[in-house]
Amino acid sequence: MASTPPPPYVAVLFTNRLAPGTDHAYDTTAARMLALAQTIDGFFGIESIRAADQTGITISYWRDYESIETWRTHPEHLDAQAAGRREWYDWYELRIAEVTRASSYTASNV
Amino acid sequence: MASTPPPPYVAVLFTNRLAPGTDHAYDTTAARMLALAQTIDGFFGIESIRAADQTGITISYWRDYESIETWRTHPEHLDAQAAGRREWYDWYELRIAEVTRASSYTASNV
Repeated sequence: MASTPPPPYVAVLFTNRLAPGTDHAYDTTAARMLALAQTIDGFFGIESIRAADQTGITISYWRDYESIETWRTHPEHLDAQAAGRREWYDWYELRIAEVTRASSYTASNV
Repeated sequence: MASTPPPPYVAVLFTNRLAPGTDHAYDTTAARMLALAQTIDGFFGIESIRAADQTGITISYWRDYESIETWRTHPEHLDAQAAGRREWYDWYELRIAEVTRASSYTASNV
């Protein structure tokens, strides 16, 4: 669950599938990218899930387009993006979206 | 991978965790809701992943807010939403977002 302020803010939707046999370097890089994103001004949070079939969805939340651009063009992130295309991903889809409405629910027994 | 037209279009981001021991009725209802959504005018596609820890992310894509509203207020979907809160979800977050940019990548060997 990502703790985000009231809208508007911006979401990066990253849907992907890893190639079979993706190596340990992927996990190391993914963890490093998460730590790096958290240092970027305007980072609000992230939700990431990978299924047994290696498809994954990662949604990250940001204050504005400017913070996403800072993240997108960070030199270390650019290196990771290139490695992702070269070595790890069968495919991915990347979407930028402006969150306009948000609501949440928590069960009373949780 | 959801096949979507060029932006703009609208995404519904549904992040959630199922309660432990969620019963078979959930799977039946989830499958029925998928089939139902596909009948709504303006439905573009869906991506859905659940992890072993029962957290899930479902992103559905729609032509516009009007098509989402048709989906949100469909009587059978309203029943499912109520059952979800009553029986299945520990928590969920629901966000509506306007997709403004999209890109994709497919490895040459896929």
